[in-house]
Amino acid sequence: MKKVGIVMGSDSDLPILEKTMDTLKNFGVPFEAHVFSAHRTPDKAIDFAKSAEEQGFGVLIAAAGMAAHLGGVLAANTVLPVVGIPCQSNALEGMDALLSTVQMPSGVPVATVAINGGVNAALLAVEILALSDGDLAQKLKQKKAADAASVLLKNAAVEKKYNM
Amino acid sequence: MKKVGIVMGSDSDLPILEKTMDTLKNFGVPFEAHVFSAHRTPDKAIDFAKSAEEQGFGVLIAAAGMAAHLGGVLAANTVLPVVGIPCQSNALEGMDALLSTVQMPSGVPVATVAINGGVNAALLAVEILALSDGDLAQKLKQKKAADAASVLLKNAAVEKKYNM
Amino acid sequence: MKKVGIVMGSDSDLPILEKTMDTLKNFGVPFEAHVFSAHRTPDKAIDFAKSAEEQGFGVLIAAAGMAAHLGGVLAANTVLPVVGIPCQSNALEGMDALLSTVQMPSGVPVATVAINGGVNAALLAVEILALSDGDLAQKLKQKKAADAASVLLKNAAVEKKYNM
Amino acid sequence: MKKVGIVMGSDSDLPILEKTMDTLKNFGVPFEAHVFSAHRTPDKAIDFAKSAEEQGFGVLIAAAGMAAHLGGVLAANTVLPVVGIPCQSNALEGMDALLSTVQMPSGVPVATVAINGGVNAALLAVEILALSDGDLAQKLKQKKAADAASVLLKNAAVEKKYNM
Amino acid sequence: MKKVGIVMGSDSDLPILEKTMDTLKNFGVPFEAHVFSAHRTPDKAIDFAKSAEEQGFGVLIAAAGMAAHLGGVLAANTVLPVVGIPCQSNALEGMDALLSTVQMPSGVPVATVAINGGVNAALLAVEILALSDGDLAQKLKQKKAADAASVLLKNAAVEKKYNM
Amino acid sequence: MKKVGIVMGSDSDLPILEKTMDTLKNFGVPFEAHVFSAHRTPDKAIDFAKSAEEQGFGVLIAAAGMAAHLGGVLAANTVLPVVGIPCQSNALEGMDALLSTVQMPSGVPVATVAINGGVNAALLAVEILALSDGDLAQKLKQKKAADAASVLLKNAAVEKKYNM
Amino acid sequence: MKKVGIVMGSDSDLPILEKTMDTLKNFGVPFEAHVFSAHRTPDKAIDFAKSAEEQGFGVLIAAAGMAAHLGGVLAANTVLPVVGIPCQSNALEGMDALLSTVQMPSGVPVATVAINGGVNAALLAVEILALSDGDLAQKLKQKKAADAASVLLKNAAVEKKYNM
Amino acid sequence: MKKVGIVMGSDSDLPILEKTMDTLKNFGVPFEAHVFSAHRTPDKAIDFAKSAEEQGFGVLIAAAGMAAHLGGVLAANTVLPVVGIPCQSNALEGMDALLSTVQMPSGVPVATVAINGGVNAALLAVEILALSDGDLAQKLKQKKAADAASVLLKNAAVEKKYNM
Repeated sequence: MKKVGIVMGSDSDLPILEKTMDTLKNFGVPFEAHVFSAHRTPDKAIDFAKSAEEQGFGVLIAAAGMAAHLGGVLAANTVLPVVGIPCQSNALEGMDALLSTVQMPSGVPVATVAINGGVNAALLAVEILALSDGDLAQKLKQKKAADAASVLLKNAAVEKKYNM
Repeated sequence: MKKVGIVMGSDSDLPILEKTMDTLKNFGVPFEAHVFSAHRTPDKAIDFAKSAEEQGFGVLIAAAGMAAHLGGVLAANTVLPVVGIPCQSNALEGMDALLSTVQMPSGVPVATVAINGGVNAALLAVEILALSDGDLAQKLKQKKAADAASVLLKNAAVEKKYNM
Repeated sequence: MKKVGIVMGSDSDLPILEKTMDTLKNFGVPFEAHVFSAHRTPDKAIDFAKSAEEQGFGVLIAAAGMAAHLGGVLAANTVLPVVGIPCQSNALEGMDALLSTVQMPSGVPVATVAINGGVNAALLAVEILALSDGDLAQKLKQKKAADAASVLLKNAAVEKKYNM
Repeated sequence: MKKVGIVMGSDSDLPILEKTMDTLKNFGVPFEAHVFSAHRTPDKAIDFAKSAEEQGFGVLIAAAGMAAHLGGVLAANTVLPVVGIPCQSNALEGMDALLSTVQMPSGVPVATVAINGGVNAALLAVEILALSDGDLAQKLKQKKAADAASVLLKNAAVEKKYNM
Repeated sequence: MKKVGIVMGSDSDLPILEKTMDTLKNFGVPFEAHVFSAHRTPDKAIDFAKSAEEQGFGVLIAAAGMAAHLGGVLAANTVLPVVGIPCQSNALEGMDALLSTVQMPSGVPVATVAINGGVNAALLAVEILALSDGDLAQKLKQKKAADAASVLLKNAAVEKKYNM
Repeated sequence: MKKVGIVMGSDSDLPILEKTMDTLKNFGVPFEAHVFSAHRTPDKAIDFAKSAEEQGFGVLIAAAGMAAHLGGVLAANTVLPVVGIPCQSNALEGMDALLSTVQMPSGVPVATVAINGGVNAALLAVEILALSDGDLAQKLKQKKAADAASVLLKNAAVEKKYNM
Repeated sequence: MKKVGIVMGSDSDLPILEKTMDTLKNFGVPFEAHVFSAHRTPDKAIDFAKSAEEQGFGVLIAAAGMAAHLGGVLAANTVLPVVGIPCQSNALEGMDALLSTVQMPSGVPVATVAINGGVNAALLAVEILALSDGDLAQKLKQKKAADAASVLLKNAAVEKKYNM
Repeated sequence: MKKVGIVMGSDSDLPILEKTMDTLKNFGVPFEAHVFSAHRTPDKAIDFAKSAEEQGFGVLIAAAGMAAHLGGVLAANTVLPVVGIPCQSNALEGMDALLSTVQMPSGVPVATVAINGGVNAALLAVEILALSDGDLAQKLKQKKAADAASVLLKNAAVEKKYNM
């Protein structure tokens, strides 16, 4: 199976990406995590993106805050799909990272998920890999069913407690 | 090759999606376009999403404006990757559609591109399909090279005109 | 009397909805509360909306955060009035939920109240039901009078403490 | 049948409210339209709200732009449900009117629809009145069906033109 | 001397208005403080505004949060200058109160100060009253001088600590 | 009578300020208009503010766009009340000018009116001057009555045209 | 004298950068203009930045819209000061480009000017170069004086036309 | 070497500026820090700016919050490059300070860094001074290398901990 390449701009984004890694592990999807800053180690980020395809990666995930350029840097240097996680930092409630990640110009898409959306970035990567992996598709359906069951359990608890 | 399913919430979004379709055509990627409103024909949107996998779709693209729920509706009913295009309408400069599309809760990702990002939605779909299609990957690299060449031509023109 | 159907996208919204339920109880308005996610259990949410009228509901209240589609999902599947409560989550101060709830396209209104407006959602439902229930209308007037009296008490306290 | 009371803060909002009135006419719902400014003729707006119930109104609709207080003024002076339409004016893309209308404090709800949402305000009023009028409920279902049919027609046209 | 009339929409705004009152006391300007809600006790707010001129008030100060209509209600019912303080509440960082207060339509101005600007509302009132009170104008100049002196003291401390 | 001093940061703001001047003329309030930029001719702006009181001005009005500092510059150099008009320029819909004008720090208030609020700035100035000029107060009441009458005329036209 | 290196992400930004070039010409500052996209020709942009110092550049100016990464790319690859011009594009009024340019993480500053601020970017570059070029500093003072004189002329025209 | 002049609008901004000073110290760049408010001690701020060039300053840094005019005041009174740090205060997440600092009108640039960007303001000043100081340029390259090395260390830690 192709690997997921996780790149974070700073290790302060780790709490968000640990959710990404946990999710990938639950699906048995192999991954590698790296700290490559778009601005402090741009060459590392670029080299990683340029060689990602031949190194067996299928999807890249970039997490960064503020003027979050990391997703764009990866996407500029690969034809693999790149998922971007805008990370909330001190000011502006994450709006800066969201706009810096999603508003990519024509030609270089970054598949953006919600602010701090570590789980969804993993799921999107799994969905992409599942296109050529029936087992993975099956697991996604099981996860969807489990999520639904979990909601129903909560519903039952709420109904029991609040409905007369 | 798997097809791309394009769903627009309203035919007023056609000018954006024609760019999506033109891009897919350039890559020789088969697609189907539909008008299924998340709010006016929810059942159609849901049925389309539920049957998309077995109907041979590989990626779904949803375009909608205002409280743009279409991407979320599709994503809730399939494990295929769903790409969301937030469309700008009269008020709020597209911010409403952007937030309604990208801020999906954990469990149901929508791969969001820029406001009115019709071309990038197509390219993201192609990138995803290219993971299991070497020809497509090759074409993406050629497109990247062509885009770069086009910038260099413009650069040459600007250099010639403005640099002394 | 017709019932109020309360649907929350997640039980994390319970603190807001407990105010809704308390308010309805104060008016003696029957209600049912459910956890139906627009994205994780869409069929449940849709079935609930489709059968709500014949099950004796008069008003539906939907509470959700982030890309808050729940109000729209209910409104797409019923002709009962649907009240939407945008819930504040971590990022963006609730602006995402507000725009996702209020900016509904023509044909499918969601009666949106303030961010986290659990009490007002209940009052709006009571106002609607009171149109055909004189007692309820009377109670609303009493509540308005009590609210006014409470302000006047606070005014008296402030006047006493601060005015010379 | 109870009437719908339409109040606009300025006759510059007429283009939006003509859609409201046309929609109400299509449903055969009686209405009255007035220009009462929350700031220039506050007494008129207040008197209208205070006497609305006994004058046979069932729902009030308020349309205003900028610091849009009209919905709040009506809601403060009646227990009838009040629907608010935030109107877009020159600056700020209607965000000022939206926040001024929807962010009402606890105790005094205004059922807010989208910016410039003239049709949806009418539909919300019809939904409310339909709770005690089976014919109206039936017409709402027909309108929902007609809206769906209209989308399906557009879908057919799009499918025919774009799908190979 | 004419009095300053302070009106707050809720006693939760007291911490901000205590700064207003303290500032007015420092200038020896008489004031009255009241809790009159634009929405829960609109008649009280209106009566206060209508009679304010003949009751000896010279300036009114209105403090409110969320859809902050209080300044507008007062301004609609008096020709006295009305100062508006937008108060920050839970969501939206005070942006809702700011836009609801400042974006008044032509004909009914509210002199808006910064979010939570309790001191500046008082100073603006004093500046207005000082136009016909030379002593007050003198005190304002002394306050300006004192503020400047305080900055210079801090400057001296910073210079001493940090400059080599 | 004291004069109103109108300062604009650029003559591109003239269309807004002509409304200010027309309004002042209607009230017979003397004024002077100047173009003094806070950034290009700061000394002129400061000198004007410093000498304004002794030159017979009672209120200053500052109109500027973008990072609109003009109101703050005047307010820093006078104890006269300063009214700020945030002017909309190309980008950001006037939000930059609004925040730059209204968010003044404690000690130096600027009485901010709506974006492009040329008429309201004049009215606020008149309200301030009317505190010591009964004729002016009378004229304000007449203007309020005329505004109300104008709304009522429009109301009559709307009622005649639309109500059955 | 060191040169100014102007890089635009797209030749659609030329109207803004022509003002930059005209301003530099007026100061006799040599410059080179290029079209190097951060996303379509990243290597070109990086190579340009890496070699800029030894090629005799003293300041770099980057202009880009949407998720404007160009300034950040240059700044990541040089220790020359980089000036960023956020360019307004279709949606979001330039807010996306502003936040993408200015919110750079610690370690890699981009000196950001106003949205579409082509002239100011040039002036900032000239100010920087003038630190070691007395003639240039002199010209800046003359430009400041000329700007002031131009304002005074406009002031004279306004005073003549509007003041009685 | 020319000095860096640091001006803060209030000593509450010290925590941000201590990072500025620490960074300058690390580079051995002489600086002076002052508290000069644009609004409370405008003359001090102006005098400082006017005399800065002849007092041996090469770059000025201004830090202020809310309607942050300090950068503009300095820039209006000097031809030295002025770096602006928008400081986050209670409301609006620093957006007010950002727009007040960056949206300067043509003719008077302020080189704006990120909200609370104390380190980057220093680095920008160092970059500017380094244009005529090879040692400083060398140190900047060393700092860039050290930053990269620090990222690589974090990368190694992350790779070791998370990669299988």
